[in-house]
Amino acid sequence: MSDQLEAQFTFLNEADRLKSVLRATTLVDGSRPENSGEHSWHLALYAMVLADQAAPGVSIDRVIRMLLLHDLVEIDVGDVPIHSANGQAHGSTDVQMAEARAADRIFGLLPPDQAQGFRALWDEFEAAETPDAVFAKSLDRVQPVMANLMSGGGTWKTYNVTAEQLETRVGVKVAKGAPALWAWVRDKTRAYFA
Amino acid sequence: MSDQLEAQFTFLNEADRLKSVLRATTLVDGSRPENSGEHSWHLALYAMVLADQAAPGVSIDRVIRMLLLHDLVEIDVGDVPIHSANGQAHGSTDVQMAEARAADRIFGLLPPDQAQGFRALWDEFEAAETPDAVFAKSLDRVQPVMANLMSGGGTWKTYNVTAEQLETRVGVKVAKGAPALWAWVRDKTRAYFA
Ligand SMILES: [Ca+2]
Repeated sequence: MSDQLEAQFTFLNEADRLKSVLRATTLVDGSRPENSGEHSWHLALYAMVLADQAAPGVSIDRVIRMLLLHDLVEIDVGDVPIHSANGQAHGSTDVQMAEARAADRIFGLLPPDQAQGFRALWDEFEAAETPDAVFAKSLDRVQPVMANLMSGGGTWKTYNVTAEQLETRVGVKVAKGAPALWAWVRDKTRAYFA
Repeated sequence: MSDQLEAQFTFLNEADRLKSVLRATTLVDGSRPENSGEHSWHLALYAMVLADQAAPGVSIDRVIRMLLLHDLVEIDVGDVPIHSANGQAHGSTDVQMAEARAADRIFGLLPPDQAQGFRALWDEFEAAETPDAVFAKSLDRVQPVMANLMSGGGTWKTYNVTAEQLETRVGVKVAKGAPALWAWVRDKTRAYFA
């Protein structure tokens, strides 16, 4: 057991570094950039609160676990903002390969059976095919929209985002897992993009 | 549904303020105080990783949900450090009453059925009687111990904490929900308190 705890705390102490990874999005009050640790917490709370937006059969508890670990690879790779590089950087092959190496290293700190389970959950999130992963991705995309709305534009201003780009880069993904949610949020964005 | 989403986002946007509540404990690297939002994320990850330290019958998914919302009352009340005021402030009647008022206000932003469910989970955590709540409390107490260990003393230095005080204020609570975990962690603290 002592080897097991040693490995588990090596992972948990390493995970702490996610609190120092800064995102392009700010807090709702605009006071500072959000970090990926607190972002992951906020998303897990989104899953609890917006559970009834999920398709039937989605396991909110699995979605929460996915969201808790989905950004850990950013400890090595950093956050790649969705609207940066004209929307081309996020999800590029280079970024995906770097994130896979980061997943090897970071989940590999855990005891083997846990490493495998965490990695499988992260792979599922990244593949965005299962209903749980699709809903988790919807939440990951909609939370920065709310932060931008509340803070007067946020990354939409930084990257000169248009309503069409928001729809393509964000809306389509939110709508895939939570269509009614996106219809409601898109309405809220009309004033900004008008 | 639109009233429901309005209430849910009022809550989720208000919850964002937890990212600006600072704790006495620092990050593992000692670079800055930890905030209660990222602390809640880290604790939820602790629950995932240290699940096998829980008593049989504990639901880790309920523990995770409890930990995600356990500190929201700090938006109104702030964090009351465990070792401050010679260990007397944390859990005082004044603080408990202020936290109950904060819970009324903050969970009250949610649609009524959700408000009730979230409040019940928070009440259960605070009462620390069910096996789920006891385990959640153990994690809440052990995480700052690891941060102090990693950062060279942290709040033990700030508040001149002794090994006996650590045992009374922290160890007893960690051991209640996770006895083997506390035995292992206490061993790690011996060098600091020697
Ligand atoms: Ca806490």
